[in-house]
Amino acid sequence: MSHSQQATDNRHHVVVVGGGFGGLATVLGLKNDRVRITLIDQRNHHLFQPLLYQVATASLATSDIAWPIRWLFRGREEVATLLGTVTGVDAAERRVLLSDGQAIAYDTLVIATGARHAYFGHDEWEPFAPGLKTLEDATTIRRRILMAFERAEREDDPLRRAALTTFVIVGGGPTGVELAGTIAELAHHTLRGEFRRIDPKATRVVLVEAGPRILPGFRPDLSDYAKAALERLGVEISLGEAVTACTAEGATFGGTLLPASTIIWAAGVQSSPAAAWLGAPADRAGRLKVEPDLSVPGHPEIFVIGDAAAVAAPDGSPVPGVAPAAKQQGRHVARTIRARLAGQPTARPFRYRSAGSLATIGKREAIVDFGWLRLRGRLAWWLWGIAHVYFLIGARNRLMVSLNWVWIYLRDQRSARLITQGQAAPKAPAREAT
Amino acid sequence: MSHSQQATDNRHHVVVVGGGFGGLATVLGLKNDRVRITLIDQRNHHLFQPLLYQVATASLATSDIAWPIRWLFRGREEVATLLGTVTGVDAAERRVLLSDGQAIAYDTLVIATGARHAYFGHDEWEPFAPGLKTLEDATTIRRRILMAFERAEREDDPLRRAALTTFVIVGGGPTGVELAGTIAELAHHTLRGEFRRIDPKATRVVLVEAGPRILPGFRPDLSDYAKAALERLGVEISLGEAVTACTAEGATFGGTLLPASTIIWAAGVQSSPAAAWLGAPADRAGRLKVEPDLSVPGHPEIFVIGDAAAVAAPDGSPVPGVAPAAKQQGRHVARTIRARLAGQPTARPFRYRSAGSLATIGKREAIVDFGWLRLRGRLAWWLWGIAHVYFLIGARNRLMVSLNWVWIYLRDQRSARLITQGQAAPKAPAREAT
Repeated sequence: MSHSQQATDNRHHVVVVGGGFGGLATVLGLKNDRVRITLIDQRNHHLFQPLLYQVATASLATSDIAWPIRWLFRGREEVATLLGTVTGVDAAERRVLLSDGQAIAYDTLVIATGARHAYFGHDEWEPFAPGLKTLEDATTIRRRILMAFERAEREDDPLRRAALTTFVIVGGGPTGVELAGTIAELAHHTLRGEFRRIDPKATRVVLVEAGPRILPGFRPDLSDYAKAALERLGVEISLGEAVTACTAEGATFGGTLLPASTIIWAAGVQSSPAAAWLGAPADRAGRLKVEPDLSVPGHPEIFVIGDAAAVAAPDGSPVPGVAPAAKQQGRHVARTIRARLAGQPTARPFRYRSAGSLATIGKREAIVDFGWLRLRGRLAWWLWGIAHVYFLIGARNRLMVSLNWVWIYLRDQRSARLITQGQAAPKAPAREAT
Repeated sequence: MSHSQQATDNRHHVVVVGGGFGGLATVLGLKNDRVRITLIDQRNHHLFQPLLYQVATASLATSDIAWPIRWLFRGREEVATLLGTVTGVDAAERRVLLSDGQAIAYDTLVIATGARHAYFGHDEWEPFAPGLKTLEDATTIRRRILMAFERAEREDDPLRRAALTTFVIVGGGPTGVELAGTIAELAHHTLRGEFRRIDPKATRVVLVEAGPRILPGFRPDLSDYAKAALERLGVEISLGEAVTACTAEGATFGGTLLPASTIIWAAGVQSSPAAAWLGAPADRAGRLKVEPDLSVPGHPEIFVIGDAAAVAAPDGSPVPGVAPAAKQQGRHVARTIRARLAGQPTARPFRYRSAGSLATIGKREAIVDFGWLRLRGRLAWWLWGIAHVYFLIGARNRLMVSLNWVWIYLRDQRSARLITQGQAAPKAPAREAT
C-alpha cells in the first residue's frame, strides 16, 4: 500500500471492500505470489454476526465476537488493511473512491459490503425500533432493554409500567426468534430477585411475524416445534399481521396498538449500494444481480458477493443471506482470480451448497435441518452451540464464549449487563460522579 | 422502596448515594434487621476502577470489570437499588433530591459519590485530553489510541504521521504510569506486523509529570526503579514541567509544544459536589471536610466517605483517594450506624490503615510497598496481578480476567481492540454497511 510500493509493484492488485464473512474468505483464499491485496472496511473489526444477538441480550461481551481485521492478516505481508469508507467505484478508471477523497486503483475488485436492516420505506420507525447489524446496534439494544426495567422500577403509573415491561420483536426469522427467547430468559430467570417494585416475571415478550409461521426457512414441523418451545418460554407470538407503525407509544399490528417502550427490528434488510455504485441492475432488496460466476455484467474484473449480491442456487431459489453462502462465494471468487492469473480464463459458475440451517430458541432448545438430518430440542441445542463455537476465530474467543455460556447455563448469570453510552439516568449532569 | 412499604415500614432507612467501593462496603456492612437501604447510582454498574486503564488499552472487556449493582444485592430483600441522578440534599427535611423531581426521604444518609478528573480550571482541555473515570471514558480513550494508528497508516505527511504516533500521558501517578507502560507495550509488541506503511515500533509515548518524580506516593528508590523500567519499555519521561496547554495540535510543557494527536489526562481529580449540596466546608479538591467519625459537621445523620470526603490519617496526612480507604470508610460508617441502632450512640473516629501501595509498569514489572515489605520487578508484578484478581467480585470475572492476562502474557494478543462508537472512518454515511 505504500506509495513507493504501488509505483514499482507489478503484482496483480485485488481490492476487497468489506471485512465480513465474504471479504475474509476472499482474502484467505487468495494466497498467491502474483497478488497483492487491499482490504477496505469502515470498521476496524470483523464481526461474527450470528452471535450478535447475544451481545444485545447481555450474554456476551463485544470483544468475544469481534476481531481486529489487521490482526487476522498480520502475517501476510501482501495484505494491506485500510480503515476507510467507500463512497463509489469508478469502473472505467478501475478505482475505488473513498470518503476522504482518496482513490485506490485496482486490477480486480471484490465488493462484499453486506446489508443493513431496512424498514420497507418507513425509515421514521428506526428511532423507535432499532435493528441489529453492528456492535453499536447491539449495545444500543442492550441499553434499551436494561433501561426499560430500570424505568419500570421507578414508574408509579401501572399502564406506563406495563408498557416499559413489554418487548416487541418484529420479524420471526432466526434473529427475531433468538432475541425473543433470550429476552424472555433474561426477564424470567436472570433478573430474578433483583427488583423490589416490579416483578420481571410479568414481562411480556411479543414476537410479531407478518407471514403464516415463524422461521419460514425451516420445514413447517420444525417451525411448529419452535413456536411451541418459544411459548413455553413465555413468548407471545402473533402471526399473519404485519407491523404498520412503530412509535414511542408502541407497535401497531392487526390494527391495534400494543403499548411497548422497547421494539426491536428483525424484519428486513436492504443491501449496501454496490448496484448504485456500478449502475447495475438490482433486485428488490437492492442486491446487485451478478453473473453466474459472481462477476458484474459487463465487468468481469468486478465481483460482488454475500448479502450485496443476488444469485440463484442450483435449484433456482435465491442463495440465502447467511454466513456460509458468503464464505463459499468468497472462496469461489478467490479460485476464479487465481485461475485467471494462471492463464486459465474461466467463468465457472458459483454453485451454492447448503450447509444446513440451525436456529436456537432458548436454553436446551434449538432446531437443526441438514436435509439428511433433522433435530430439535436438547441435542440440536448442543449441536448449535458447538457449531457456533467452532466457527469463531482463535482459541481465545472459543474459550471465552464457551465459558460465558457455561456460566449462563449453570447460574443464569449474564455478565455483560451494562448500561453504557447514552444517558444512563434521565437528565444526568455530565460532570457529576457517583 | 415500594410506596406501600414506605408508608408502613418502620425500619431505619439508610440512603447510600454512589455504588463505588465506599457505597458497596457500606451496604455490605449494614446487614441488620432494623435497617432498610436504598442504594442510588446514576450507573447501573459497580466499576473496578483500578483496572479501568486495561479497558482503555484494549486488554480487558468492559464487562470484565463491571457488575450490575442490583445483581450484587439480589439476595437482600431490604436493599433497593435505584438508577437515578442525585442533584442535591435537603438536609432540613432529610430528603435526597433526584434529577427527575423525585425526593427520597432518609433517616441516615451516606454520600459516596467519588470524584472525577479535573483540569485545574482548564476545562477547555477536556476534548483534547480525556480522563479516565468511567467505562465510556475507557472506550473513548481506546478508540482514540487505535484510531491514531489507523490514521497514521493513511497519512502521507511525515510530520502529521509523527503527531499521530505520539501519545502524551499527563500525570505520573499510578494511572499515568500504567497507561504509559501499556500503550508502549501495545505499540511495540501487540501491533507488530499489522501495518504496511508505518512502523508501530517508532511510536513515541511521553509521560509528563509536573513534580520532581513519578509515583510520588512511593519511596524515592521505588520511583527511580519505576522510571528506569518505563524507559526500558520505550517511554520518554518529562519531570518538573507542568502541562500548560492541550489542543488539537498537541501538549505544551516546558514552553514547547509537542505535536501529538492523542493526549490522556491522568493528572488531577475534583470531588463530586457533596460539599456544595450541604453547604459544608471543602478542601481545594472539593472534598467535604468531615468530622473524625466521617459525619458532616452539624449533621450526625449524614456521612461522607471515599473520594468525596477529606479526612486525616492517624499520622496527620490526608487519607489517599484509593479503593482500600473507601472500603474501610464504608465499613466504619456501617459499624457506626449499627451501633447507634443498638442504642450505643458512638462517634468513634475513623482510623485509616494503609494496606500498602502497588503499581504495575509493564509485563513482569511492578513495585510494591507494604511498609514492612518492598518489592520490585517480577515478584512484585505477580503479587500485583494476584491481588487485583482477588479483589474482583465473583469467580467468573476472576477467571475471565486471569485468562485474558494469560493470553496477553503468552501471545501479546489483546482481545478488546475494537474501535466502537463515534465515527469509525471519517465522514462515513450512517447507513452504508461493510
